[in-house]
Amino acid sequence: MSKIRVGILGYGNLGRGVELALGNMSDMELVGIFTRRKGVITKSGEALNVDKLADYIGKIDVMILCGGSATDLPKQGVEILKNFNTVDSFDTHARIPEHFSNMDKVGKESGRLGAISIGWDPGLFSIARVLFNSVLPNGKDYTFWGKGVSQGHSDAIRRIDGVVDARQYTIPVESAVEKVRSGLNPELTTREKHTRECFVVAKEGADLKRIESEIVNMPNYFADYDTTVHFISKEELDRDHSGIPHGGMVIRSGNTYSDMDHVLELKLTLDSNPEFTSSVLVAYARAVYRLNKEGKSGCVTVLDVPLAKLSPLSEDELRAKMV
Amino acid sequence: MSKIRVGILGYGNLGRGVELALGNMSDMELVGIFTRRKGVITKSGEALNVDKLADYIGKIDVMILCGGSATDLPKQGVEILKNFNTVDSFDTHARIPEHFSNMDKVGKESGRLGAISIGWDPGLFSIARVLFNSVLPNGKDYTFWGKGVSQGHSDAIRRIDGVVDARQYTIPVESAVEKVRSGLNPELTTREKHTRECFVVAKEGADLKRIESEIVNMPNYFADYDTTVHFISKEELDRDHSGIPHGGMVIRSGNTYSDMDHVLELKLTLDSNPEFTSSVLVAYARAVYRLNKEGKSGCVTVLDVPLAKLSPLSEDELRAKMV
Repeated sequence: MSKIRVGILGYGNLGRGVELALGNMSDMELVGIFTRRKGVITKSGEALNVDKLADYIGKIDVMILCGGSATDLPKQGVEILKNFNTVDSFDTHARIPEHFSNMDKVGKESGRLGAISIGWDPGLFSIARVLFNSVLPNGKDYTFWGKGVSQGHSDAIRRIDGVVDARQYTIPVESAVEKVRSGLNPELTTREKHTRECFVVAKEGADLKRIESEIVNMPNYFADYDTTVHFISKEELDRDHSGIPHGGMVIRSGNTYSDMDHVLELKLTLDSNPEFTSSVLVAYARAVYRLNKEGKSGCVTVLDVPLAKLSPLSEDELRAKMV
Repeated sequence: MSKIRVGILGYGNLGRGVELALGNMSDMELVGIFTRRKGVITKSGEALNVDKLADYIGKIDVMILCGGSATDLPKQGVEILKNFNTVDSFDTHARIPEHFSNMDKVGKESGRLGAISIGWDPGLFSIARVLFNSVLPNGKDYTFWGKGVSQGHSDAIRRIDGVVDARQYTIPVESAVEKVRSGLNPELTTREKHTRECFVVAKEGADLKRIESEIVNMPNYFADYDTTVHFISKEELDRDHSGIPHGGMVIRSGNTYSDMDHVLELKLTLDSNPEFTSSVLVAYARAVYRLNKEGKSGCVTVLDVPLAKLSPLSEDELRAKMV
């Protein structure tokens, strides 16, 4: 059986993760890593420049797009999908319909298939939301994130005058989670669901009171939450807060006709957000290859991909061992 | 938009559950309930006899098969699939490949589609197993059941001489669950994973010591577990143990390339096993109708059904709200 030939576009945390994840897959091989930057060294030598992409048409079955959602993916996706099947982790929820419709149009024209918004949220959490809502129509959804590092919130703190570096953790309020798990269907405010904890390295002599106040009162990011700020040294930050853990829970609580309560929960506890996301991208690359081979083109999300397509096992093996 | 026309075959706990679940679905209508028994009264009058099934060909889009796995479903499935799309809850794991292959052959010939082994295990748990294994290839699977009533184990106790009635609960060992959740990847024996608790009504004057000993030493059912036996009155059994709760957890714990640990968990807590299973069957009936309309015939399991097909929402709505 010939292997699925995979390319990687972009070589940040996610691209490096995909490179390493592919190393464990006996049914896939990495053909090339492409970047816009010069002199980028990968595990297998210097990365290829994006201007070499045209040389690989027909030689790569799926390109995994490892750029950012804000600017890279919406532009790259439609370009690359003209010549390659794609998988991306586009995670700007509000713009998913737009990205889908752009990708679907290009894919239908080129005969290629693009899987968008692959990862854990959107991704595995989307699967849980739709599955849980469909099998338990009368109920209420709860999503908790964390404990985990929010890159956006960490960046927001770093932009404050006098801040050298920062790391922000989003933490679910355990008592709220327990209320939901026990089927009480509580109404929860933003403040009641999550707290935020910040570890901040300040410039020498900076006004710590002012920095703390700017953080906890920052609209959208922190004002609606109970936020704790700890000032620590750069050494402490690097030693104790260099990981990128994340995760969370999707919980649906509701009842069937005779007032019987049911609670359905998906919980993810991830030591490394980018490593796990990379691993999900690789599984969906396998599915995209198979679906496109069966004639499917355009765009799909996790909701359109039958789960059997994700596994290296055959459908016979899956039915015998996993159903 | 015309409604999906649904039939029910079999009117036990599951059939009654499907009847009630359909009442909440605005996109589906119940056309008829069929049984082999005479004089069965449903919510909407007397059930139809199975010999009337032929009159409904072309008038029912999906037939939900609510018989038992041991004898009903393997025989009924292939018969009914000649003339109707079907959904069943076939749950004898070891025989799923055989049931699939029989159903697939008939469905391919008749142009109908049968979804088999729909429910929560097999069903939602199968989805979790395949999804978790695919996105986290290097890891270990754990399944815990309960706290819940095992019908098979309750029946086994009832067959003991001197026993009037019994109810058996399967209970996960909390310390084992916590070890798994914390990512320790423990090796667990059968005894370390679950305990069994039995509530038994004995005949007046029966030898309770002998009954207890027969239970806890029963091979396959109890001998490999720590089992507790409580003798109670028939009134207590009916008052405190008439529910049929169940549920459990599928947990996969493993790591990605740089030894980062991840723990993925699906947890279900169900007040009523048959009511929840009915609700799952109804969602998959919607999917079967849609897939067959798109031209799919033969047999599918939960692994072959894209999740978007389960929801009453349109694909556009799902992408806008749920991805």
